[in-house]
Amino acid sequence: MRKELIALRQKMQENGFDAYIIPTTDFHRSEYVHDHFKCREYISGFTGSAGTLLVTTEEALLWTDGRYFLQAENQLKGSGIKLMKMGQPDVPTMIEYLESIMTEDHILAFDGRLCSPSDIPEDMFTMVTDADLVGEIWRERPAINPSEIYPLDLSVTGESSDSKLARLRAAMAEKGADFHIITALDEIAWLYNLRGSDVKHTPVFFAYALITAGEDFLYTMKEGLHAPGKHLPYEQFMTDIEALPPGTVLLDKSTTGYAIIDALPEHLEIISAEDPVLEMKAIKNQAEISATKNAHIKDGVAMVSFIHWLKQNGEGLTEIDASDKLEDFRKSREGFTDLSFDTISGYAGNGAIIHYSATEDTNKTLKSEGLYLVDSGGQYEDGTTDITRTIAMGPLTDDMKLHYTAVLKSHIALCTAKFTPGTTGAELDAIARKPLLEIGLNYNHGTGHGVGHLLGCHEGPQSISPRDTTHPILPGMINSCEPGVYIEGSHGIRLENELLCIETDSGLYGFEPITFCPFERDAIVSENLTKDELAWLNFYHAKVFETIGPLVDGEIKKWLQEATKEII
Amino acid sequence: MRKELIALRQKMQENGFDAYIIPTTDFHRSEYVHDHFKCREYISGFTGSAGTLLVTTEEALLWTDGRYFLQAENQLKGSGIKLMKMGQPDVPTMIEYLESIMTEDHILAFDGRLCSPSDIPEDMFTMVTDADLVGEIWRERPAINPSEIYPLDLSVTGESSDSKLARLRAAMAEKGADFHIITALDEIAWLYNLRGSDVKHTPVFFAYALITAGEDFLYTMKEGLHAPGKHLPYEQFMTDIEALPPGTVLLDKSTTGYAIIDALPEHLEIISAEDPVLEMKAIKNQAEISATKNAHIKDGVAMVSFIHWLKQNGEGLTEIDASDKLEDFRKSREGFTDLSFDTISGYAGNGAIIHYSATEDTNKTLKSEGLYLVDSGGQYEDGTTDITRTIAMGPLTDDMKLHYTAVLKSHIALCTAKFTPGTTGAELDAIARKPLLEIGLNYNHGTGHGVGHLLGCHEGPQSISPRDTTHPILPGMINSCEPGVYIEGSHGIRLENELLCIETDSGLYGFEPITFCPFERDAIVSENLTKDELAWLNFYHAKVFETIGPLVDGEIKKWLQEATKEII
Repeated sequence: MRKELIALRQKMQENGFDAYIIPTTDFHRSEYVHDHFKCREYISGFTGSAGTLLVTTEEALLWTDGRYFLQAENQLKGSGIKLMKMGQPDVPTMIEYLESIMTEDHILAFDGRLCSPSDIPEDMFTMVTDADLVGEIWRERPAINPSEIYPLDLSVTGESSDSKLARLRAAMAEKGADFHIITALDEIAWLYNLRGSDVKHTPVFFAYALITAGEDFLYTMKEGLHAPGKHLPYEQFMTDIEALPPGTVLLDKSTTGYAIIDALPEHLEIISAEDPVLEMKAIKNQAEISATKNAHIKDGVAMVSFIHWLKQNGEGLTEIDASDKLEDFRKSREGFTDLSFDTISGYAGNGAIIHYSATEDTNKTLKSEGLYLVDSGGQYEDGTTDITRTIAMGPLTDDMKLHYTAVLKSHIALCTAKFTPGTTGAELDAIARKPLLEIGLNYNHGTGHGVGHLLGCHEGPQSISPRDTTHPILPGMINSCEPGVYIEGSHGIRLENELLCIETDSGLYGFEPITFCPFERDAIVSENLTKDELAWLNFYHAKVFETIGPLVDGEIKKWLQEATKEII
Repeated sequence: MRKELIALRQKMQENGFDAYIIPTTDFHRSEYVHDHFKCREYISGFTGSAGTLLVTTEEALLWTDGRYFLQAENQLKGSGIKLMKMGQPDVPTMIEYLESIMTEDHILAFDGRLCSPSDIPEDMFTMVTDADLVGEIWRERPAINPSEIYPLDLSVTGESSDSKLARLRAAMAEKGADFHIITALDEIAWLYNLRGSDVKHTPVFFAYALITAGEDFLYTMKEGLHAPGKHLPYEQFMTDIEALPPGTVLLDKSTTGYAIIDALPEHLEIISAEDPVLEMKAIKNQAEISATKNAHIKDGVAMVSFIHWLKQNGEGLTEIDASDKLEDFRKSREGFTDLSFDTISGYAGNGAIIHYSATEDTNKTLKSEGLYLVDSGGQYEDGTTDITRTIAMGPLTDDMKLHYTAVLKSHIALCTAKFTPGTTGAELDAIARKPLLEIGLNYNHGTGHGVGHLLGCHEGPQSISPRDTTHPILPGMINSCEPGVYIEGSHGIRLENELLCIETDSGLYGFEPITFCPFERDAIVSENLTKDELAWLNFYHAKVFETIGPLVDGEIKKWLQEATKEII
C-alpha cells in the first residue's frame, strides 16, 4: 500500500473523517493543472489527466474514464486503490457509491477549494468542506513560481478591458447582481486583456476577480500589473469576499468551489447562473478573428511542412519522433509560444485510441503503409490552433479509404451547413453524424468544441455535441469540426478543421474554415463523394494552396500543389 | 358592437370582474372543438381554429396567429374587438398585455375548466377561476349529443386495457403517485381501447379518467360500456376528485384546467409531470403498426386514384371540387369513417399558405400548369393517415422544379437518417432542413408530428421540430415527415410521408415510410439528386407500385406504373 495513502488515512482518523475525496483540479477548474495541484496523483500514483480518488476508512477507489483504464490498472498495482471504470455496466458513480455506504453519522470531507456543488450535491451528506489533508502531508510539494503577467495590445484583443467590464456590468444588472465573482483563469485573462504562463498549454495566470457596479478587483500572485482596476494579492480574495456588504452576488454554483460559497456572508443572496463572460469571450471580434487566422496560417505552414517531411522520412520513426518533429516545425514559426495541448500522435491501431498519448511503452514505429493520425495545436502570439489530419503512410486497405471518405463526408456536412439563428450544437452535431451513421459508423465524442483566442484550446459555453441543446452557435464563435471513425486495433481517422461561424448574405448562419491544410487525397474515394461534396473539397484545397502556397518553397510547395490539385 | 360582447360586459360588471378571458378549447384541450364549446366564436364572431379573446371594461382584444390575420380582420369588422397579431413586432402577448394593465385590485376571471396554468400563470394576477359567464348568456347553445362508445378488438389494439393500466400503474408508482387524473380524450380512448365520435376528425368521446393503485374510474356521458373498470357519469368526476383521500396525485399542470387543480383537496400533493400515457400511446405495438399500414394502403389507393383522375380532369375545377373528389375516393375505401383533418387543397399561390383552407372567397380554379398542393388524411377502421403531395398540373417553371427537388432532398434526408438511441426531434429536424437551407430556403413549421392510431392525426409527446429537444424518437413511434417551400403568391410545395421509427440490425434507429403514393416525377430535376437520393427514390417508387399496383386496375394501374418507373 502506498505510504501517502497510509499518511492520508492517519490524518482522516485524527480528524474523525469517514471518507475523503481528492479530485483532479486546481482552485480554478483549469483543464491543465499545475504540478502544485496534483494531489490526486501524489496520493494515488496515477498520472492520468482525469479521475477522482475516494478514500474511506476501509477502502480507496479511483474513478476514471475509458481513456485511462489500462494506464490506471498498471499504475494502481500494489497501491491499495481499486479502479472504478466509469461508464461500465454495474460500476456506480462516486456519488451513488457514497450514497450506498454513508449514513448520517458518517462525515465526508474534502478541500472545498477543489470541489463544487456540481461535484458533490449540497444536501446529500454530512460534510466538512475545508479539509486540506493532502496539503498537511505533502512535504515536497512543487511550489508555484508565478509567471510574469503581460498585457495584450488592443490590435490583438480588439476591445479594451474597460469596454468588456462595461458589457459585463450590463449583464450583471440584467440579472440583478450587485457583485460578481469570477474564478476561471481564461475568463479573467480575457476580461483584463492579460496573459501569463502559470499553467501548461494555456497562457493564463492564477487569479480571482471580483466585480461590483462601480469597481473591480483583480487578485493575482504577481504584482505590478499595467491594467485598469484595483490589483490585490491572490490571498486577499478570500478575506475580501468574507467582508462583502449585503446584496446579491452572481456566480456559477456548478463551477464555484464550496470554499467560496461557504465564505460568503449570509446577508448575501447568491444568484447562480452561467458566467456572462463565457458567451462574451466565445464570440470573437474582428481583431481576434484576424489574429486567429494569422495563427492558423502559421500553423498551416508547419503542418504542411510536417506532412511533406513525414511522407519522405516517416518510415522507421516512432510516434514520439513524429510529434517531436511536428513540434519543431511549429517552433520555427514566428511567435510560437507553446503547444495548445499534448499532441496525439497515433499510428495504426493507436490512432483508434481517441485520447491517445504515446509513451515509451506504447510508442509504435511507423511503416510505409496504413494511416497515421495526428491531433495537435499551437499557441502563437496571435492565437490558438487545433487541427487533426490522418495521413496515408503508404498503401491503404479499401476499408481505410471507405472510412476516410465517410469521415470527410461528415466533416463537409457540418462545414456546408447553413442554419437559422437559434440553432444549437446538438442540431449541428446530428447533421455532421448523418453520413457516418448511414453506413453504420459513429464516433463516441462530440463533433466540436469552442476554441479560445490566445486561451484554452477547449472552451465553452457552446459545443457541437448531442449534449448541448441550449447554446446557440453564433457568428464569431470558433468551433472545431472533428468527426472520426475508430477501428480498434486497426486504424483511427479524425479530420479536424476549425470553423468560424459567420452570417451569410441571406441572414442564415454558416461556417468558414480557418484551418489551412490539405486532406489526404490518397485516402479519398472520389466516387463516394457527391458533386457538391467534391466541389467543396476542391474549393477548400484551392483556398489552402492560395493561402499556404506563397509561404512555402521548393519541394514543399511542389508537394502542396500536388496535394491540393483538383480531384475529379 | 356585437350584442354578445355587450351581454358579456354586463355580466362582468355584475360580478365585479375587470378582465375576462375566453380561449378556444374544450374541457379536454381537444384539437377539434365541438360546437358546444365554441364560446370564443360565439362572443367574437371569429370562426378560426385558434385565438384567445380578452375582454376588459374598456376594450376587447383577440389574439390569433398568422394563419388567421386576414380572416379575423374581416370577421371582426364592427364587432368592437381589436385584432392582436401574434408574433408581429410590438404586439405583446396576452399575458404581457395583462401585466401592463392589471393592478392588484383588478380581478381577472375565466372559466377554469378551459384554462390551465400554462395559459395563465398561477401567481400573477388576482383571479376568479370559476366564472362561466358565456354559459350564462349563451341561450341557443348547441347541445352535446353524446355518441355511442364502441370497443376496439384486441387484434387492432394489440394490448388489453388491463395491460395498459398495469403499465400505467407502474409508471405512477415510479413517480410516487397514489392517484392519476387524465383529461385528454385521446389518452383515455387509447387506455380503455374505446372509441366514439363526439368531436370532428378524431374518434374520441367526452370523458375523464381517475386511476388509483387498485381501481380505475371512467367518467363518460354515455352509459353502458363494455370495458373493464368502473363507469360513472361524466358530471360525477368533479365531485369525486373533491373527495379524494390524502395522498399524491399525478397530473400535468400545463394541460390541466384550474377547475380540477382548484377542486383537489389541500391534503393532496400534486405531482406535475408529463402524462405517462403520452409516450406509451406514441410507441405503437405490432398490431397497431399492421393496422395503420392497412389504413395507409387504402389511403394510397385513394390518393393514386385521385392524382390520376386530377391529371385528366383537373383543369377548370376549383380547389374545393378537387378536395371533394379526393374525399369521395377516400369514402369509397372500406372502413373509411372520417377525414382526419380538414383537407388543405391549394393551387398556385394558395399552396404557399401553410394552413390554407379553401373558402368560396379564395377558391382558385385549377389550370393546366403549375403546382397544386393537397394535404389530407383519413380515419379508417384500421388507423389514421396524413399525407401531402404536390402535383404538377402541367408545365412547371425551372424554379418550381428546383424547389420541388430541394424539398424532396430534405424529405429523403430525414427518411434515410440513421440515429443513436436518445436522438431527439430537434436533431432530426436539423438533418431534414439542411438541403433546403443550403440553397437559402426554409419552412416556418416543424418537420413532423406524431400521428395517432385511430386517434388524433397530431399527437405528442414527441415532434420532429427545433423546439423538441427533450423527447427521443423511439422505435414504434409514427411521425410525419413534411418539409416544404412556400413562395408567396406563386407556389407551395410540401411532401409528406408518415415514417415508422424502427430499430435496424446494427442497433441504430431509422425510419420506414408507411405512406404509399408516388412523388411527382415531372417536378424532379434528377441531376440535382445524389446517387444515394436517387437510389432511395427508385426504391420507394418500386415499393409503392408493389403495394398499390395490385389494388388498382386499367388506366390507373398504367399511370401508376409510369409514375413509379425508375428515374435515371
